[in-house]
Amino acid sequence: MNKREIQKILPKPPFFETSVKNYIFGDDVYNYALAVDAAAKKYDVDAIFIAPYTEIRRIAENTDRIFVFAPYMDTLKPGRGIADVLPEAIKSAGAKGVMLNHCERPMTLPQIKRTIDRANELGLITFACADSISETKAIAQFQPDIINPEPSELIGTDQASNMDYVVETLKVVKEIFPNILVEQAAGITTGRQIYDFIMAGNDAAGSASGILNSPDPYKLLDEMVYNVRKAKDELEKSKGHKK
Amino acid sequence: MNKREIQKILPKPPFFETSVKNYIFGDDVYNYALAVDAAAKKYDVDAIFIAPYTEIRRIAENTDRIFVFAPYMDTLKPGRGIADVLPEAIKSAGAKGVMLNHCERPMTLPQIKRTIDRANELGLITFACADSISETKAIAQFQPDIINPEPSELIGTDQASNMDYVVETLKVVKEIFPNILVEQAAGITTGRQIYDFIMAGNDAAGSASGILNSPDPYKLLDEMVYNVRKAKDELEKSKGHKK
Amino acid sequence: MNKREIQKILPKPPFFETSVKNYIFGDDVYNYALAVDAAAKKYDVDAIFIAPYTEIRRIAENTDRIFVFAPYMDTLKPGRGIADVLPEAIKSAGAKGVMLNHCERPMTLPQIKRTIDRANELGLITFACADSISETKAIAQFQPDIINPEPSELIGTDQASNMDYVVETLKVVKEIFPNILVEQAAGITTGRQIYDFIMAGNDAAGSASGILNSPDPYKLLDEMVYNVRKAKDELEKSKGHKK
Amino acid sequence: MNKREIQKILPKPPFFETSVKNYIFGDDVYNYALAVDAAAKKYDVDAIFIAPYTEIRRIAENTDRIFVFAPYMDTLKPGRGIADVLPEAIKSAGAKGVMLNHCERPMTLPQIKRTIDRANELGLITFACADSISETKAIAQFQPDIINPEPSELIGTDQASNMDYVVETLKVVKEIFPNILVEQAAGITTGRQIYDFIMAGNDAAGSASGILNSPDPYKLLDEMVYNVRKAKDELEKSKGHKK
Repeated sequence: MNKREIQKILPKPPFFETSVKNYIFGDDVYNYALAVDAAAKKYDVDAIFIAPYTEIRRIAENTDRIFVFAPYMDTLKPGRGIADVLPEAIKSAGAKGVMLNHCERPMTLPQIKRTIDRANELGLITFACADSISETKAIAQFQPDIINPEPSELIGTDQASNMDYVVETLKVVKEIFPNILVEQAAGITTGRQIYDFIMAGNDAAGSASGILNSPDPYKLLDEMVYNVRKAKDELEKSKGHKK
Repeated sequence: MNKREIQKILPKPPFFETSVKNYIFGDDVYNYALAVDAAAKKYDVDAIFIAPYTEIRRIAENTDRIFVFAPYMDTLKPGRGIADVLPEAIKSAGAKGVMLNHCERPMTLPQIKRTIDRANELGLITFACADSISETKAIAQFQPDIINPEPSELIGTDQASNMDYVVETLKVVKEIFPNILVEQAAGITTGRQIYDFIMAGNDAAGSASGILNSPDPYKLLDEMVYNVRKAKDELEKSKGHKK
Repeated sequence: MNKREIQKILPKPPFFETSVKNYIFGDDVYNYALAVDAAAKKYDVDAIFIAPYTEIRRIAENTDRIFVFAPYMDTLKPGRGIADVLPEAIKSAGAKGVMLNHCERPMTLPQIKRTIDRANELGLITFACADSISETKAIAQFQPDIINPEPSELIGTDQASNMDYVVETLKVVKEIFPNILVEQAAGITTGRQIYDFIMAGNDAAGSASGILNSPDPYKLLDEMVYNVRKAKDELEKSKGHKK
Repeated sequence: MNKREIQKILPKPPFFETSVKNYIFGDDVYNYALAVDAAAKKYDVDAIFIAPYTEIRRIAENTDRIFVFAPYMDTLKPGRGIADVLPEAIKSAGAKGVMLNHCERPMTLPQIKRTIDRANELGLITFACADSISETKAIAQFQPDIINPEPSELIGTDQASNMDYVVETLKVVKEIFPNILVEQAAGITTGRQIYDFIMAGNDAAGSASGILNSPDPYKLLDEMVYNVRKAKDELEKSKGHKK
């Protein structure tokens, strides 16, 4: 699939993104995914759900609004490599895309390139992580579909990126390739942050440990997706005014 | 789970083992797994099926005789590590065991030890690969439940281990820990080889590429599982005679 | 050492660069290094010599014109890590710089950043390899002192980068940080290529296997360094004319 | 070189072993190596000195009693692999042997085998580390020349292996291959421990951080090597008595 075709299958901004890392497993992941799907439908916004390999199929088969992504893939072609994650395997399980270069599984530059090439070939959406301004600019050169410029020292904490970092990473990505979607996710713990980051011009915002470590994850999830909708409405209204 | 408890959940020798590596994916894996399950029931023998991560759950939920194994796992505890294969994740998806140290994903000694420790902790059966006599003896020290001493230069070929190698690896494993089950799988392409290797005293025999690359995989699969049964019957008869 | 200070210790463009990879070892490396040093003095140009770890000290102590570089370093601080290449160790052995991200030892983005940070800290010059236009732009974001944009498929062959690639990589680097020096080295086998690449505006040109695999390496080495000088003279003359 | 020939070039038990890991670098390593060489001559015992790659040659050229070892090597043949440690390179720099599988650079089983094969081919002595009884038995299968069964949790601490562990590891190695020399080094901080471990039947004893972190390293070094001599004399005397 070429880049033009992949553009058509991307989630519509502003969208929401979440994952479970390996904090939970099995039915807990599945139930959380169902809740994300329900919230996405309730507020009529798109959402990416990054699922452990073993849950991709079950989630993809039982949801209809969320975009299920794999957290990583290898780049082998069908054949040997028994312990590897085959791109065709995640696609046939129902994944719509793949995350790459998360700071918990950093990639070499040739690996980044090969992963994006293989994903393009199969029509899988690429979601690349970067952990600094320099790394954001570096990874943008390979033209992933979505970039998540998340300072690695904030991941898993309750401290969000400051607005200067957010604005700067957004700007540098769009200067390199305006079509790359930018998502902010570092240390987000409130619906208000989701709202603010989207209003600042980002295409998406998300949270993983911020939700899972909260006292009432399902309530916070709902609040966050609500804020995506709220920001979306205001952005559309303001566009209307401009006309 | 301690070793005594794991002994009780092991497949009953002689048993069959197969996998798909990454030669096929999606429904092809699923359908092949169903056929292995059907053959295991038809001939009333146990069988291990090593499935790609993404297919473990679907296969485990829709079969009842085969033992579904993961091809690898990491050793992290629930938490961060988004691209890792969490032991709890494969177990909750329905895996009964895990393969380790396949020559396509070799492990360091500390990694072998940690993988076996984590598997024991969760009650997952360990299936360790070794690619020479020395490596077989080395890996036996860590007391996995099953060892597959497969000369790596024969994997994926149609050339089986010779009987001297088979007899020798069987002997060295049983000298180290008599409870470790020994399976032979290198380059097996016929039912007759399955029969011969089990009659030579092995606890199991198996084939992956030998079946998948054959002109009629489902027919060859049936023939191989039939030969496990045939060997089993003769071994039991000969035990009877001895009494 | 900050970037301004490192600027002062860089080789003066146009300069020459060579290495032996692991094609030769021991005295053969040493004698080749002495020849490079001699040629650098004969033609009064700077030259980088990338030496195996074990030969860095001997070469550094017995030459006076060449800049000895290590082919890689780890980023640990003094302490444990017995098999690692300590930055302080290569510096104290006489290395003036370090190569990083060679396609035979690709690095993750965080590793690239940490290597450049550690090198800057110790006043070691950084020489980064890139194997495509995208990778060249990516690695330039981390501001190494020198970039070698070498298409990996040409390394070790006798086919040079074409002039379009050379001109394009030079341009993209200088647009990102004008102070980064650009060297071309892919598949160079003749003095004429050295001359052409420098005349095209590159700060340096070099060759490793091109020299070592030639029938008369010492003669070809001399010819290449001569061509650096020749290009340098013409560039200076043309600058003079412009005044 | 076959195993019989390598037997002839091994250090004579009981011998001493030490290294600097990466705690120190440059001249500090060199001066320490000279002191080890002087102590080995003073007390007329053999000693292994594991040196950083960059110091192997200088130390080997300026000492005459110590056996200089590399802390690791790759297994490539001369050719590409610019950042790798070529076996021929460490040998030509003067190394007499190579350490492998240190817990700070653990190896897969195939890597252990290849490293020992390459070392045998070049006549380099192999010194393998193991960090538990199981790992000691495992690595002994590959028949390295020397095994150092050092519980990894004690490395770099001031706590020595207890005598039960020492006696057990010694026994299991000798049962597998009586010709493998056994050295104890975990957490040794006094000359008395050196003496005790050798008197318990080990072929060697050593210390790295125990010496380097002591208030007077050169004094402690002397005391340790003296204790090797003392143990040697008593063992010889007791052999004499037996005749």
